[in-house]
Amino acid sequence: MVRIGVDIGGTSFKCGIVDEKGNIVSRFGFKVDHAVSQEELIEKLISSISSAITHSKIGKNEFEGIGIGCPGSINTSSGCCEYSNNLHWKDLPIVKMVEGGTGLKAKIANDANAACLGEAKFGAGKKYQNLILLTLGTGVGGGLFLNGHLYEGKEGKGAELGHSLLVMDGRLCSCGRKGCLEAYASVTALIKDTKIAIENYPTSLMNGYAKTNHGVSGLTAFECAKKGDAAAIMVVKNYVHYLGEGIINFLNIFRPDAVVLGGGLSNQKEFLTDAIKHYLDGEHYGFGGDSSPKADILVSNLGNDAGILGASALIGE
Amino acid sequence: MVRIGVDIGGTSFKCGIVDEKGNIVSRFGFKVDHAVSQEELIEKLISSISSAITHSKIGKNEFEGIGIGCPGSINTSSGCCEYSNNLHWKDLPIVKMVEGGTGLKAKIANDANAACLGEAKFGAGKKYQNLILLTLGTGVGGGLFLNGHLYEGKEGKGAELGHSLLVMDGRLCSCGRKGCLEAYASVTALIKDTKIAIENYPTSLMNGYAKTNHGVSGLTAFECAKKGDAAAIMVVKNYVHYLGEGIINFLNIFRPDAVVLGGGLSNQKEFLTDAIKHYLDGEHYGFGGDSSPKADILVSNLGNDAGILGASALIGE
Repeated sequence: MVRIGVDIGGTSFKCGIVDEKGNIVSRFGFKVDHAVSQEELIEKLISSISSAITHSKIGKNEFEGIGIGCPGSINTSSGCCEYSNNLHWKDLPIVKMVEGGTGLKAKIANDANAACLGEAKFGAGKKYQNLILLTLGTGVGGGLFLNGHLYEGKEGKGAELGHSLLVMDGRLCSCGRKGCLEAYASVTALIKDTKIAIENYPTSLMNGYAKTNHGVSGLTAFECAKKGDAAAIMVVKNYVHYLGEGIINFLNIFRPDAVVLGGGLSNQKEFLTDAIKHYLDGEHYGFGGDSSPKADILVSNLGNDAGILGASALIGE
Repeated sequence: MVRIGVDIGGTSFKCGIVDEKGNIVSRFGFKVDHAVSQEELIEKLISSISSAITHSKIGKNEFEGIGIGCPGSINTSSGCCEYSNNLHWKDLPIVKMVEGGTGLKAKIANDANAACLGEAKFGAGKKYQNLILLTLGTGVGGGLFLNGHLYEGKEGKGAELGHSLLVMDGRLCSCGRKGCLEAYASVTALIKDTKIAIENYPTSLMNGYAKTNHGVSGLTAFECAKKGDAAAIMVVKNYVHYLGEGIINFLNIFRPDAVVLGGGLSNQKEFLTDAIKHYLDGEHYGFGGDSSPKADILVSNLGNDAGILGASALIGE
């Protein structure tokens, strides 16, 4: 049996036929044309899927279903994308359209939740029963794999780990609440903190690094900290404090087998995970101290395929 | 089929034979004698259980097993109480001893997790698939019922919801970490805040209320707020802010069907839950705003039987 995984993004639909072991046996997809209606894009997806099935020479009864990961506010109960900022979609009944158009069972999830399922089934977390994914990017995305299954909550709207508190009444978050983890530990927040440090310490290496690298990015402070720059070390230390305290929250709440870090900063691999491990191994480890089982701190390893693989695995959930 | 539920507390073992509908068909138990060894207490439990089975006139093959809720650090994988502060227990292999002594299957969980399962199966939360229990007492206890099952995490050490952050680097918590929800929203914290308010506002009604009610308790501020006392209203308002922000965290993380509040303050029933609902319905509701499904805010309703009922339900998990 095979499944189809659909990874919808702001610029393209990436799709694949995925076998039971998580191999993508063929790929297809298309760029998003923002000039056409939301319904036309789903019609295009349906004809792409039909064409891919025909070309695959795999019998249609070998296809178990179609899993779809989609950005925005997804209602897994109704199978709708209620709202997507990037795609300008509203109340789009994706599951109903895809099932009607293909004759196959379809399931949908928020893209972060689908990515978490991908890591849990085929990626860095595949040997674990209880796994947390934190995606450090423009925001802080979250995914929960608990008791061996994806946990999504009511209507699939849970796992907004980035919108748990770090500081009550603290920094304003993009969600409108004050003090969320995302307002401290996202790459967006790290860039803000880096810019403030450059302003305060104009002789910092970060100043030159940013100028020769097309501006400040999430890597600026990390790369300059490796070279011993004091201001950069301070920025990184604060960032690790924020992210470390956020992770301790999730350790105390879930006592998971592993925490997988994904997103833009995962380029920093060991430099970031080692700093986090060091932080957790210190006096900060949280409730229960040494008697609490530790969690592995890992970097996601599916790269661009996490979306397709995770979406395909929705069919088994 | 019936099950035995054992609710171990600091002063007594409360036990019951529980039928499939959650009726306690007979009760037994004994006071904790702190002079005898930990092993002797478990031997006493075993003989109480054997005697209760004999007296019940229910055939032994009708007993599915024995569920045990126990305070302290419980390792559900090994079946041990690793440490209990109240009972002065250390590395006590309760499950192995009870299974050996009775010939029945046994399971153990932290008492807060067992109580959560009781509420989910037989109490305030019995119609829900995703439920959070917050017990407001000396500390803030937590329990998680997710995707229709108790979630306990690695070795059963999860669901320490009281030890998620409210304020990074904030008030010192009993666990050694700074800023945990427990340090703001436990009854212990409420009493501290009430005492400070009485000191600062000696003419507050709380002063006289405490004197005629054997000192400051978790109810002092609530009862005086109902009478319109300004200082008491301030204390309650702050408490609702702390607890409300803590609950929003869990809504964003879990998007549950319901949050059940238990413990000492549940005497305040509607007064507390209405204040919390009002807080959540305001501008504070959290990620997704109106598009996010709301959770019911409930008060636990099993009272003293939550422990026995929840423990018995461990056998079905």
